[in-house]
Amino acid sequence: MAAEIVNPKDGLGEDVIDPAFALHRGGKMAVQATVPVRDREELSLAYTPGVAKVCSAIAEQPELVHDYTWKSQVVAVVTDGSAVLGLGDIGPEASLPVMEGKAILFKQFGGVDAVPVALDCRDVDELVDTVARLAPSFGGINLEDISAPRCFEVERRLKERLDIPVFHDDQHGTAVVTLAALRNAALLRGRKFGELNAVISGAGAAGVAIAKILVEAGIGDVVVCDRKGVVSSDRDDLTDVKRDLAGFTNKANRSGSLSSALAGAHVFIGVSGGTVPEEAVASMADDAFVFAMANPNPEVHPEVASRYAAVVATGRSDYPNQINNVLAFPGIFAGALQVRASEITEGMKLAAAEALAAVVSDELSPEKVIPSPFDPRVAPAVTAAVAAAARAEGVARR
Amino acid sequence: MAAEIVNPKDGLGEDVIDPAFALHRGGKMAVQATVPVRDREELSLAYTPGVAKVCSAIAEQPELVHDYTWKSQVVAVVTDGSAVLGLGDIGPEASLPVMEGKAILFKQFGGVDAVPVALDCRDVDELVDTVARLAPSFGGINLEDISAPRCFEVERRLKERLDIPVFHDDQHGTAVVTLAALRNAALLRGRKFGELNAVISGAGAAGVAIAKILVEAGIGDVVVCDRKGVVSSDRDDLTDVKRDLAGFTNKANRSGSLSSALAGAHVFIGVSGGTVPEEAVASMADDAFVFAMANPNPEVHPEVASRYAAVVATGRSDYPNQINNVLAFPGIFAGALQVRASEITEGMKLAAAEALAAVVSDELSPEKVIPSPFDPRVAPAVTAAVAAAARAEGVARR
Repeated sequence: MAAEIVNPKDGLGEDVIDPAFALHRGGKMAVQATVPVRDREELSLAYTPGVAKVCSAIAEQPELVHDYTWKSQVVAVVTDGSAVLGLGDIGPEASLPVMEGKAILFKQFGGVDAVPVALDCRDVDELVDTVARLAPSFGGINLEDISAPRCFEVERRLKERLDIPVFHDDQHGTAVVTLAALRNAALLRGRKFGELNAVISGAGAAGVAIAKILVEAGIGDVVVCDRKGVVSSDRDDLTDVKRDLAGFTNKANRSGSLSSALAGAHVFIGVSGGTVPEEAVASMADDAFVFAMANPNPEVHPEVASRYAAVVATGRSDYPNQINNVLAFPGIFAGALQVRASEITEGMKLAAAEALAAVVSDELSPEKVIPSPFDPRVAPAVTAAVAAAARAEGVARR
Repeated sequence: MAAEIVNPKDGLGEDVIDPAFALHRGGKMAVQATVPVRDREELSLAYTPGVAKVCSAIAEQPELVHDYTWKSQVVAVVTDGSAVLGLGDIGPEASLPVMEGKAILFKQFGGVDAVPVALDCRDVDELVDTVARLAPSFGGINLEDISAPRCFEVERRLKERLDIPVFHDDQHGTAVVTLAALRNAALLRGRKFGELNAVISGAGAAGVAIAKILVEAGIGDVVVCDRKGVVSSDRDDLTDVKRDLAGFTNKANRSGSLSSALAGAHVFIGVSGGTVPEEAVASMADDAFVFAMANPNPEVHPEVASRYAAVVATGRSDYPNQINNVLAFPGIFAGALQVRASEITEGMKLAAAEALAAVVSDELSPEKVIPSPFDPRVAPAVTAAVAAAARAEGVARR
């Protein structure tokens, strides 16, 4: 569909010609009552005086809030609008269409209610305090589009402080889907996961989380590159997060450019938005996997990548193997909420990735190492795996 | 319907026997998508990449947020759980059933989406900052069940700081409906509103707001009583709010007890939860109006009040003339949101009361000075009047 670029200054005329504006008119979501309030008797049960005894019961026995309110089925989609899509820092109000979109994907794919919460504050302390104060109303917190490195500290501190799942999707959703696709790529080509060496371009939210989950899953090695080249402990310009990263990646303590790191590598994972020269892709090991996930412009054009790589994945819906977070976050939260998990552990993320990979493990081809976002088997499989992992890890509360 | 009192310690068995618990199981509300996300093309419009151009348009032209998100149709129902119904300070989680109830009444009666936001904080500065940070996501803020006198300052400061309607329903919703009923009682009995003298028992959120709106509407005089008796400028124990109250009520600067104040009064308005002796009711002027609104136990039993008063109203649904806030807040917010009002002014509240009263002004009887909450004429009438008043007062933005 041709989505013509329009001038927003034209005012409201644009939705006549642009289907995205037309679809967004009036927003994308609504609230609905799930109980009737048609007459005095129904009103007296759903509201005063009947509601008072439900409130009193929760006051006496706090865990009843999960049974008698929507808390345990609703997630706050929280942002400060500082790193929205590829648009950057556009502020909370301009980020709302993305948060509403996320909310309806939660509902559509996971059956999870979700509410956009775009916050007008930037300071880490203020963000943490604000989300913590909101937490009584929600069963989980999905952090979204908060810029690095603040996103790491906001998530870490909220996880410490709250007893409900806190999950920064730009990190962990991306990491889970990437791991699933890489598992299947290895399976398809008969490669041992523990013998793969991967190079990640980008040390922001997604790059850091992908590096972590690949290491946890037992990959051979990972080298992460930022704009200045390979992240190694020899560098003296590293942030705390990158220093930490250097500690568990780059076993050979290499340095140099992204291109030099790619020579002989088995896997390229791009979450940077830059461009990788074709020669560098050509220098990778035979049978390589290229996941060029920048959107809308992959770091390596998929047609170029296909000349050298055995499996190519992107972030785009118009090429095979789309690494799309919607494959992960609805089921991850649905599983966590189902068992009232107090957090989303590393084990739950790994279980989500394994379950996601398994959905298509009997149907693998170079064009299908990951399911379609619309594959109806995905969310139930991820939900069940995450719930089971939460029980196994002792964080389930029912 | 028999709503048996149950022991919450019994766990989840109670909803077998109690219809209020049965109705509350799983909560009372859900979120729904209003646009389809059934296939790749729809996904690419509602989410990436299509959503990006809508975000960019809002970033360039901020007022477009009202057109292309749900902001302008969604209200946050905000509480700290400090003064919930007659239950008092039960905390944020135990207050959630009330906030959900309120949210579904917004939808059912006003067509307004609403989201429960129960906050884990009590400090006035923290409450104000937290709500202000949330404001980008919402078209209006309904404050609910926040204890006095904090509620006054929280509302005042948020009104100053935000450019969306902020409305403490326990104050103004009650005041609007009370004024409407009193207007109609006066009309029914041929009394001039400007010649009525009213006594209010209770100087909390509702009492203060009722006193203000009655004075604004031109009542003869109001005397407000707290637990220590008549609020007068001679007292040296007054909070700032009560000192302010003393400045525009009690023209004769009376002092003494509630009972003494009632002698010869035309109107009693109870929002205190105490009990008024029958002798005091008997001492009121002939043709008096008794609005004994405490719930579930009115300050004067309506059967007792009927022996002396020409019109009796309560807060209960099982007696005539129920003063129920649901007659006001859905239409007030619907009207304010319809024209994107920057605030809810005194004029808008007065217009709401007049419109509400007018719905039954041709059908008046001692048992009907206010419409039923289920009268379908109410919300449209209030909505239209509030929208028109917002335009007249220059706070409408479309």
